[in-house]
Amino acid sequence: MNTLGHLFKITSFGESHGKAIGIIVDGCPSLMEIDAQFIQSKVDKRRPGQSNLTTSREEQDEIEIISGVFEGKSTGAPIAILIKNKDSKPEDYDHLKDVYRPSHADFTYQQKYGIRDHLGGGRSSARVTAGWVAAGAIAQLFLNHYQIDIKAYVKQVYNIALTIPYSDLNLDNIESNSIRCPHPETAQLMEQEIVKAKLEGDSLGGIIACVVKNCPIGIGEPVFDKLNAKIAHAILSINAVKGIQFGEGFGSVNFKGSEINDGFITHNGKVQTITNNSGGIQGGISNGQPIYFETAFKPTASIRKPQQTIDKSGRSIVLETSGRHDPCVLPRAVPIIEAMTALAIADLILLQKTNTL
Amino acid sequence: MNTLGHLFKITSFGESHGKAIGIIVDGCPSLMEIDAQFIQSKVDKRRPGQSNLTTSREEQDEIEIISGVFEGKSTGAPIAILIKNKDSKPEDYDHLKDVYRPSHADFTYQQKYGIRDHLGGGRSSARVTAGWVAAGAIAQLFLNHYQIDIKAYVKQVYNIALTIPYSDLNLDNIESNSIRCPHPETAQLMEQEIVKAKLEGDSLGGIIACVVKNCPIGIGEPVFDKLNAKIAHAILSINAVKGIQFGEGFGSVNFKGSEINDGFITHNGKVQTITNNSGGIQGGISNGQPIYFETAFKPTASIRKPQQTIDKSGRSIVLETSGRHDPCVLPRAVPIIEAMTALAIADLILLQKTNTL
Amino acid sequence: MNTLGHLFKITSFGESHGKAIGIIVDGCPSLMEIDAQFIQSKVDKRRPGQSNLTTSREEQDEIEIISGVFEGKSTGAPIAILIKNKDSKPEDYDHLKDVYRPSHADFTYQQKYGIRDHLGGGRSSARVTAGWVAAGAIAQLFLNHYQIDIKAYVKQVYNIALTIPYSDLNLDNIESNSIRCPHPETAQLMEQEIVKAKLEGDSLGGIIACVVKNCPIGIGEPVFDKLNAKIAHAILSINAVKGIQFGEGFGSVNFKGSEINDGFITHNGKVQTITNNSGGIQGGISNGQPIYFETAFKPTASIRKPQQTIDKSGRSIVLETSGRHDPCVLPRAVPIIEAMTALAIADLILLQKTNTL
Amino acid sequence: MNTLGHLFKITSFGESHGKAIGIIVDGCPSLMEIDAQFIQSKVDKRRPGQSNLTTSREEQDEIEIISGVFEGKSTGAPIAILIKNKDSKPEDYDHLKDVYRPSHADFTYQQKYGIRDHLGGGRSSARVTAGWVAAGAIAQLFLNHYQIDIKAYVKQVYNIALTIPYSDLNLDNIESNSIRCPHPETAQLMEQEIVKAKLEGDSLGGIIACVVKNCPIGIGEPVFDKLNAKIAHAILSINAVKGIQFGEGFGSVNFKGSEINDGFITHNGKVQTITNNSGGIQGGISNGQPIYFETAFKPTASIRKPQQTIDKSGRSIVLETSGRHDPCVLPRAVPIIEAMTALAIADLILLQKTNTL
Repeated sequence: MNTLGHLFKITSFGESHGKAIGIIVDGCPSLMEIDAQFIQSKVDKRRPGQSNLTTSREEQDEIEIISGVFEGKSTGAPIAILIKNKDSKPEDYDHLKDVYRPSHADFTYQQKYGIRDHLGGGRSSARVTAGWVAAGAIAQLFLNHYQIDIKAYVKQVYNIALTIPYSDLNLDNIESNSIRCPHPETAQLMEQEIVKAKLEGDSLGGIIACVVKNCPIGIGEPVFDKLNAKIAHAILSINAVKGIQFGEGFGSVNFKGSEINDGFITHNGKVQTITNNSGGIQGGISNGQPIYFETAFKPTASIRKPQQTIDKSGRSIVLETSGRHDPCVLPRAVPIIEAMTALAIADLILLQKTNTL
Repeated sequence: MNTLGHLFKITSFGESHGKAIGIIVDGCPSLMEIDAQFIQSKVDKRRPGQSNLTTSREEQDEIEIISGVFEGKSTGAPIAILIKNKDSKPEDYDHLKDVYRPSHADFTYQQKYGIRDHLGGGRSSARVTAGWVAAGAIAQLFLNHYQIDIKAYVKQVYNIALTIPYSDLNLDNIESNSIRCPHPETAQLMEQEIVKAKLEGDSLGGIIACVVKNCPIGIGEPVFDKLNAKIAHAILSINAVKGIQFGEGFGSVNFKGSEINDGFITHNGKVQTITNNSGGIQGGISNGQPIYFETAFKPTASIRKPQQTIDKSGRSIVLETSGRHDPCVLPRAVPIIEAMTALAIADLILLQKTNTL
Repeated sequence: MNTLGHLFKITSFGESHGKAIGIIVDGCPSLMEIDAQFIQSKVDKRRPGQSNLTTSREEQDEIEIISGVFEGKSTGAPIAILIKNKDSKPEDYDHLKDVYRPSHADFTYQQKYGIRDHLGGGRSSARVTAGWVAAGAIAQLFLNHYQIDIKAYVKQVYNIALTIPYSDLNLDNIESNSIRCPHPETAQLMEQEIVKAKLEGDSLGGIIACVVKNCPIGIGEPVFDKLNAKIAHAILSINAVKGIQFGEGFGSVNFKGSEINDGFITHNGKVQTITNNSGGIQGGISNGQPIYFETAFKPTASIRKPQQTIDKSGRSIVLETSGRHDPCVLPRAVPIIEAMTALAIADLILLQKTNTL
Repeated sequence: MNTLGHLFKITSFGESHGKAIGIIVDGCPSLMEIDAQFIQSKVDKRRPGQSNLTTSREEQDEIEIISGVFEGKSTGAPIAILIKNKDSKPEDYDHLKDVYRPSHADFTYQQKYGIRDHLGGGRSSARVTAGWVAAGAIAQLFLNHYQIDIKAYVKQVYNIALTIPYSDLNLDNIESNSIRCPHPETAQLMEQEIVKAKLEGDSLGGIIACVVKNCPIGIGEPVFDKLNAKIAHAILSINAVKGIQFGEGFGSVNFKGSEINDGFITHNGKVQTITNNSGGIQGGISNGQPIYFETAFKPTASIRKPQQTIDKSGRSIVLETSGRHDPCVLPRAVPIIEAMTALAIADLILLQKTNTL
């Protein structure tokens, strides 16, 4: 339903054009410094209107901490965060009231609940992920106590792919461009494709890679709460995600066991794997190597090009919209990937505290 | 931890070479006919020793229903199923007691818990999935009341791929060969590769496709329990899985929104999508089209070829094993994929019962 | 932690003197009319300042529905409700910053978390129950679809007890007096005792009875989510509650089995019990008879009389407070009891929907 | 449903006359010595046939550990325990197949599920608590690491009450008599009453007190998982329990705040309360004082005396049974109370590990 996590738990609420969207973080350990500016900075990375590549909807997405923080520190009580909806234009959506937009959730929500808030997608809008990013920032503040570093970046947009492996990239370059691709030349090619799609009234998908460094060994529960299963669950909660793969992922199919197994060595007294084809996870548990996974996003469903579909009464219509949409969500999805990853890992770190005496 | 599901819940227990492995199914509606032979037939599909392609471990995997069934029917009480371990040879594993096998869970379990049952992988063994298959069979008995049909098949083994889309295949052919590939010619090529790998003492991975027909519209919770997120969580619990993709998945990256969006039409008074690139799921909710997803399995970690690794004390060793392993787990993984899918859908169907008055 | 319920779930947040307190209701079925005035009317019953018997803190406790309601109806999305704190006087609490008030949660919170918001008790304040009452009102709106009627009343204040059994009382009289006792003469005696205690700077406890009529047969899960166990869990979440008993409760000890067993009869074609010593629950499941239970509240911990205690450094002090406290919380606790009962039953009714095909 | 606990979780299964009853303990920390004899000794305390006061059903209740223990130690994997049903006499229950026994769960189960296993009460039988006691013993092994000591005793049987407060009793005497009352003279009076009731074919209820010593300060979650709420939930899961009260409980109603508040003092550098009317819990959190609560059991519903009731078709009948029943369950309920208390506290101790950095 609307709660994720077993110990570091978030509860999401709100609709795209309601009064506000928000998040409750329950289970955050006490006595942590809750740096509101840090949280805001993460939310800002997801905010619309950061560049000409994103929707022109104007939202400041100002976070307001309602509870759980006293004199700058977490108290152990639930931290509620509110983000008011300001640039809401309900009248913009009158023509969509009875339309089932292609590859959107209009039809499925209507069938599921018998009612739907159609304003900007209502509950199904990616706008609600702003709250998740705020919660993920709090999770990251917790992970900072373990020096865990989570970095996501855009690896592919449409047919422009960055083929250099994560270990050979300078991840400090991610924020050097509006695409959030650590390879500036590739970023430029991606940007060109996005601008082109925008002009065409079309949209593009792509792949986001995520690297987690310094995750302690032993995180992830065997069997049903494997680290990869928990990350997958969190990541597949994000709108437009169509796939996830860990380590070599689908590519591992092209190797034999003898080629892809990660043997162990001792290096400077520390156990490591020789290769990291597993992506840092073995038997569902972190092994101390960088955790690596990739997420596939389909092209944004909202496009300006005319499309064939039906309305609520079943009549065929041609849909032409002029809404404020992103031609490619990937740059704004980078902080969401990081947030969901942080939340999954924070939850499992707390769980691991309970596995030994 | 060891329970999966919110309403149709399973709790798994047992180790590879302990007294038994087993499963508790809690939340199964009452008054269902519990056909023990059907459950056994599903477990048999996962059983070792079905063909020369699988491990020679001899396990009858006989299910024993302990509770929850009265005069052939479910009573609403938890259904406990026990599968005794019979062909257990603990002495076979003495040489592995202190070894960290490459790409196995030996190292991570040891680090996580400070102790591990090393016999045949203990708790981390894929043997425990026999219980999941039994539970999945009960879920399927429940789904039969909705005429929901779940069929998984081997789509790729190593570099032998079946490229015909699911909609053009005769899925009744899946069981016509020991590979469980619905295209007999491709199955034969796959078998040849597996035999070759077996002779080499090596192993192969591959891709399993899964098709769910007749899933009612409206199944899947928005936000954090999306149908795809729940399926992914369940599927990534299976050993050796490295990725999952829905509909066009990672391939959707190569299309533009206008090319891949699934517009709606009305056909014989029923709402359908023109294409099914979404794989039957929109906004995390089933839309009535076939649900389609693919799962990537890495090559089995257990191989006979010598491998470089270390022992518990950190010393480098060359590992040579002659255990009873599968050169390719995919044929035996087909019923596991079906089981986990059935469990995820059964859980969400029960949940959907509570979404309306 | 801060979430209660399995399907009809509430998540509570907020502190007594923070920006707001609030509640998220997740799992409320769609298409229900959400009558905001009804919710407000329930919250008003818990509000301070209703009579001279309650604290003089001035809070309008105005509810603000943030999400989950569209055109007056529930959409299936989480319903967030905010209640702003207005008459907050942080400075009133400066002298309590380092004091461990007797029978309050100051000491235990400080030890548990290493930090505490001392303003009006912070998270431990009964003020947070205003959100629970709002959520309970939504649960009641759901229960209205089953004609379920929940009525709580004050049965005892200090040594003034109403001895007439619930079945012989006119429960429509509950709101006829500020005590919420359905027997006006007894109410008057209770009021006199409360006024006396107020003048003395002391406080009184008592017993609240609760009667649930028209609960369908079959509600409550056997074993660990028995109807009585779920109600007890919910009720013991309320501040100052020290005990709960169902049906004849502790009094049943004074009878023999033959005297207290509830035999069955058929009356007008309906199965009933001859007596209702079980309080409407057998084997943890509702049997169609009125559900009856009683809750014991200790006297309010906050009193004006000087008390011996210590401060944070361990030094003995005499505490004299002049805060705005209730000499007896029972009248204001009546709507809280009703709310928690409604939430427990709503949750189990949704669960029962999943127990049969 | 059939799982209890958030981190130290038990899943119960089995019926009175099925193949076996059992329990899965999930979340038990690794590297704990699992003393099977200790577990068996606890189960033996609950076993039928210990004295002439209990049912003559002959069950050895031999525990069999199926999983989760390796070389005598917990591995972190779920611990499954099986207890086979041996002295099962299904034919004894033929005459009860269609009868709704007074104050039993026959009627409510039938209405809830549309089917019921009538053999010895099936799932609703108190026999399933044997598994809980085994699980509670494992919880106690965990609590031993904190020196937590849990002792329950019979405080009242029918009208024979032990009025000496727990703090003045020698709790080492509990096992000195078959009643499990620490005051031998009172035990003798209780025994006489039970024998009398047995001869009459009647049954008696009573009160069990429970004292927990050395519980660390800070255990219990504020708001919805208060220590008292969790204990109440666990205790009210036990058959025949009709009420629970903490500290002074219902009796606290007879005092004023100034008389009953527990002020703090510093004693030998340790913070204590002057009195312990709160029963060791303030704001839902343990305060370091002994935790004290009492549980009311109604008389056993099964009696030999003829009773008026109906059968499934609604016809009035007079029920006369000659089953093997306990005239008073209290002595055998003592280990159950201890087990459920240990489980609740173990769960909250694990949770408390996650509340701070």
